[in-house]
Amino acid sequence: MIEELAAFFAREFPQADFAIEEVGDRSARIRKSISQAHLRPGGTVSGPVLMEVADAALYVAILGELGLVAMAVTSSLNVNFLRKPVSDRDIVAECHLMKVGKALVVGEVSLFSDGSESPVAHAVGTYALPGK
Amino acid sequence: MIEELAAFFAREFPQADFAIEEVGDRSARIRKSISQAHLRPGGTVSGPVLMEVADAALYVAILGELGLVAMAVTSSLNVNFLRKPVSDRDIVAECHLMKVGKALVVGEVSLFSDGSESPVAHAVGTYALPGK
Amino acid sequence: MIEELAAFFAREFPQADFAIEEVGDRSARIRKSISQAHLRPGGTVSGPVLMEVADAALYVAILGELGLVAMAVTSSLNVNFLRKPVSDRDIVAECHLMKVGKALVVGEVSLFSDGSESPVAHAVGTYALPGK
Amino acid sequence: MIEELAAFFAREFPQADFAIEEVGDRSARIRKSISQAHLRPGGTVSGPVLMEVADAALYVAILGELGLVAMAVTSSLNVNFLRKPVSDRDIVAECHLMKVGKALVVGEVSLFSDGSESPVAHAVGTYALPGK
Repeated sequence: MIEELAAFFAREFPQADFAIEEVGDRSARIRKSISQAHLRPGGTVSGPVLMEVADAALYVAILGELGLVAMAVTSSLNVNFLRKPVSDRDIVAECHLMKVGKALVVGEVSLFSDGSESPVAHAVGTYALPGK
Repeated sequence: MIEELAAFFAREFPQADFAIEEVGDRSARIRKSISQAHLRPGGTVSGPVLMEVADAALYVAILGELGLVAMAVTSSLNVNFLRKPVSDRDIVAECHLMKVGKALVVGEVSLFSDGSESPVAHAVGTYALPGK
Repeated sequence: MIEELAAFFAREFPQADFAIEEVGDRSARIRKSISQAHLRPGGTVSGPVLMEVADAALYVAILGELGLVAMAVTSSLNVNFLRKPVSDRDIVAECHLMKVGKALVVGEVSLFSDGSESPVAHAVGTYALPGK
Repeated sequence: MIEELAAFFAREFPQADFAIEEVGDRSARIRKSISQAHLRPGGTVSGPVLMEVADAALYVAILGELGLVAMAVTSSLNVNFLRKPVSDRDIVAECHLMKVGKALVVGEVSLFSDGSESPVAHAVGTYALPGK
């Protein structure tokens, strides 16, 4: 499943550029390498990069749950920035889907600087599943 | 003021790459040119790009209100995606600050595909102002 | 239309207890009298009361747009508390719907202490419209 | 600690009317009995009641962490409604604080109908800690 999803993202979202570490059981964990382009002045990972990773983690968890044929579009994303990320560590995102309905999926994501137990950000997102 | 802010963003956030059209009176309007790199499959502007523009519009309005010396970090961002953006139009963001407190600034942003009156997304964001 | 809606709320939600002042054009304005039961220590209107009024304003605007037959359930509500409400003034809520889709309605609400131009709170809410 | 907090809420927020089951370690669990006054047509617990319980659970966890002397006011609350609550079961709220900063506390709350493992709602809230 991870290989299929990785191939899907490499083909459809080549700029996303993250690794899928786990998927299944309404959950997913992905990892993004941080480079100079992702940093803000002061050496912190930019907020939009964290939001992009949170959104991607949700999408991976949803496709893992519903299959690659699923149509799903982000309907809302609510992000709280909690701590300054470490500039030279990967960002790891752990997503858990709280509801998988017919029309809506709701999940939460905790984002960490790799190796830390305190999240740098937390997101709650909603994806809409358009009718067939 | 616009020139000063534009120089600040060009120097500090070169990758942000947007134009400041108006600033003042607790408000700001910025514009971002959309290119192939900002699109998702199906020809729509990606959600993370919209979130980045919303965050930038808030920051411009805050610096316009408090001055370039202000320290301000995004504390939360809540985005609702409302309509599919047009792929070959600029994204225009209009921000209005609802509260400018000592410790927190709260603002809302409406995002449009240039020329449309119906927003493609709406965001509410909070910036924290660290004590001096 | 206001009379019909007022009768509907009086019958279905007797505890809600607010007045509908305007409805139509994807908007609504409602007013809630504040009494001792709605106050927190220190003489401010409690946050849950503000959230209830925001939710009600959204529901009024949606029923005004879609008709009383509409089924609609709150899917999310995001509230920012901006200023301390005045304890002896009505709370006035102005709602504007940003999107009226087939499956989702998204609106924003500004809440005021009557007579003030600065909002005490701002909310963005989503209602789901279950299929028939 | 639970007794002290219970006495504080009984004195300061008599209308809140919930039981504190656990508090400590940046967490809290509270329980609210549901009666006819809390129900919506169709026999479901009203959204505003769920929001009130979420807000209270956050406040209990914060006072448990910072002590009863703490001044803390709700700054934002973002709630997602996930499932229809059971009308004749208590609502149980489990709160975990994700960040306890000098100026802001951020926490999440999962709300359950007693006996169910799937949450009926999930909230993320921010409390501001005014300077002394």
